Amino acid sequence: MKILIVYDSRSGNTEKMAYAVMEGVKIAGVEVLLKNIDEASVDELMNVQGLIIGSPVYYGLPTAKIKAFIDDSVKYHGKLDGMVGGAFASAGGIHTGAETTITAINEMLFIHGMIIQGSSGGSHFGAASVGAPDDNVKETCRKLGERVAKLAKKINN
Amino acid sequence: MKILIVYDSRSGNTEKMAYAVMEGVKIAGVEVLLKNIDEASVDELMNVQGLIIGSPVYYGLPTAKIKAFIDDSVKYHGKLDGMVGGAFASAGGIHTGAETTITAINEMLFIHGMIIQGSSGGSHFGAASVGAPDDNVKETCRKLGERVAKLAKKINN
Amino acid sequence: MKILIVYDSRSGNTEKMAYAVMEGVKIAGVEVLLKNIDEASVDELMNVQGLIIGSPVYYGLPTAKIKAFIDDSVKYHGKLDGMVGGAFASAGGIHTGAETTITAINEMLFIHGMIIQGSSGGSHFGAASVGAPDDNVKETCRKLGERVAKLAKKINN
Amino acid sequence: MKILIVYDSRSGNTEKMAYAVMEGVKIAGVEVLLKNIDEASVDELMNVQGLIIGSPVYYGLPTAKIKAFIDDSVKYHGKLDGMVGGAFASAGGIHTGAETTITAINEMLFIHGMIIQGSSGGSHFGAASVGAPDDNVKETCRKLGERVAKLAKKINN
Repeated sequence: MKILIVYDSRSGNTEKMAYAVMEGVKIAGVEVLLKNIDEASVDELMNVQGLIIGSPVYYGLPTAKIKAFIDDSVKYHGKLDGMVGGAFASAGGIHTGAETTITAINEMLFIHGMIIQGSSGGSHFGAASVGAPDDNVKETCRKLGERVAKLAKKINN
Repeated sequence: MKILIVYDSRSGNTEKMAYAVMEGVKIAGVEVLLKNIDEASVDELMNVQGLIIGSPVYYGLPTAKIKAFIDDSVKYHGKLDGMVGGAFASAGGIHTGAETTITAINEMLFIHGMIIQGSSGGSHFGAASVGAPDDNVKETCRKLGERVAKLAKKINN
Repeated sequence: MKILIVYDSRSGNTEKMAYAVMEGVKIAGVEVLLKNIDEASVDELMNVQGLIIGSPVYYGLPTAKIKAFIDDSVKYHGKLDGMVGGAFASAGGIHTGAETTITAINEMLFIHGMIIQGSSGGSHFGAASVGAPDDNVKETCRKLGERVAKLAKKINN
Repeated sequence: MKILIVYDSRSGNTEKMAYAVMEGVKIAGVEVLLKNIDEASVDELMNVQGLIIGSPVYYGLPTAKIKAFIDDSVKYHGKLDGMVGGAFASAGGIHTGAETTITAINEMLFIHGMIIQGSSGGSHFGAASVGAPDDNVKETCRKLGERVAKLAKKINN
C-alpha cells in the first residue's frame, strides 16, 4: 500500500502543504512517495493505491506543469479506476481561485475513475491555503493525507 | 446496508434514469429506497449508507426542490461523513448544463463528507441524459447504481 | 437604466453586502432596485438592464430560494440576452464554498445569455465574504456594483 | 479593433471549430488573428480587444499547452481588464468534460478581468463539439465569434 503525492511549488507554500499531507499519510500507517512535479513520473501511478495532487493557484486552475502530468497519465487511462484521490492548493489571496483549482483537480481524478472523499468540517473539497500554510492549514493538510490513506486501506482490504 | 435514491422529475426522463440506477444497486445485491423528491425526507439519511441524487437540468444546476432537500439536510451535518454519493441528471440538449448540474450535486455531497467515485469510461462525473434515456444511458445509470452500491459494501465491511 | 439586486440572507451578512453593492451602482449614477428574495418577483426582470444576485453559501451553492427565483425566471427565457449580471456570496468560513456559489450564479446568468465581467484585482468571479463583510469586502461589493452599472451603461448606449 | 483566437488541436477537430469561430468574427466586420497554440505569443494580447480560446478536452480541462499560454499571460495581468472573452472545446464523447473545459477557460479569462457573454440558445457557456464539428456546431462556433466581436465593438465604441 502506497500513496503518491505530486506537487508543484514556486514560492514554497505548496511544498510546505505537501509535507503536512505526507505526515497525515504516515500517521495512518501508510507508505508515502513525495514528488516535486519536476521529478515525478506518471509511471509511478502503477505502483500506488492513492494519488494526492497539490498546486499553486494559477488563474483558478492547477499549473501547466501539473496539467501536463495529468495529460501524460492518459497512458494509463482505464488502469487507475478505484484508486483514491485528493487535492490541495495554495493561493495568493482569499477567494482567488483555490476552490476552483481543487475542484478542477478532483474532476481530473474522477475522469481516471478515482474515489474522493469530501470533508464536512471545512475545506470541504481538499486542503487550501492563503499564502504560507499556518498551523490550522497544516492540520487540514494532515487530515487530508490521513483521510486518503485510511480510505485506501479500507478499499484495498 | 441500504442506498437512497432521491430524484426530481417533471417530464419523466429523470424518473426513468432513477429506475435504471435502482436496478444497478439491486444487481450489486444492495437494498434500495427510491423516492420522488415530493415524498423524500432527510430523516431517511440516517438509515442509509449511500445517497444518489438525480435532477433535471434547470439553469445548469439541480432544481430548487433538490436544493431545498440538501439545505434541509443541514440538520444531519457532520453525521453523514463516509457515506457514498452519486449523481445523475437529464438535460434538454447536449452541453446545456448536465455536467455543471452533476458536478454541483457532487460538491454538495462532498460538503457532507461523502465519498464519490468517478468513471474512466465516459459520463465521468455521474450519469447524464439528453432527453429521454436511451439504452446506452440506461446502462450508464445501472453502472452508476452498481458502482455506488459496491463501494458502499467495501467501505462498510 | 436600472439594476436589480436580489439577495437572500439569514444572518444579515449577505444583506449587508447587498447594501454595499447598491452603493456601488449608485456611485456609477445608475438607478437600483434592491429586493430581498421574499419580496422579489421575476417580472421585474423585464424592466432592468442588469441583475446582481447574492446568497449565503449553502452546501456550495446559492440557497433553494435563490434557485427557485431563477427556476421561475424561465418564463422570460430568451428575453434577457445581453443583460449584465453579477454575483456575491457570504460563507461561514474560508474556502467553504463561496467560489463555487458565485461561479454557479454566474453560470445560471450565462444560460440567460447575460454578460458578466470578472475582476483582475482579487475576488475575481464576484464579491465574497467570510462572515460579516468587513471594510475590504464592502469595498469589493461597491466595486462589483459599480462594474455592473458601468458595463450596463456602455452596452445600452 | 481585433480579436485573437488561440487554439490547440491534435486531431484537427478544434482547428475546424476555430475556423468557424473566425468566420463569425469576420461576419461581424471585425479583424481577426487566428493562432495555433504552437505559434501564439502572449505579447499579441496587448494589440487585441478580444480573446477566444479553444481546446480539446483533456481530463475535463484545456490542454497543458493552453494552460501554459495563460500562465505566461500573467506578464500582462491587470492590463487586460475589459477585454471580451470566449471559449470553445471539442470532446471525445457526450458529457465527457466539454462543459468543465469551457467553464475553466471562462474562469481563467474572468481572472484577467475579461467580459464574457453566455447564450440562451444552447451551448450556453461557449461552443462545444463531440468529435468533428458538424454543421450545427459550426453554426454555434460562428455565433460565438459574432457574439464576441459585436460585444467588443459595443464596449470599445
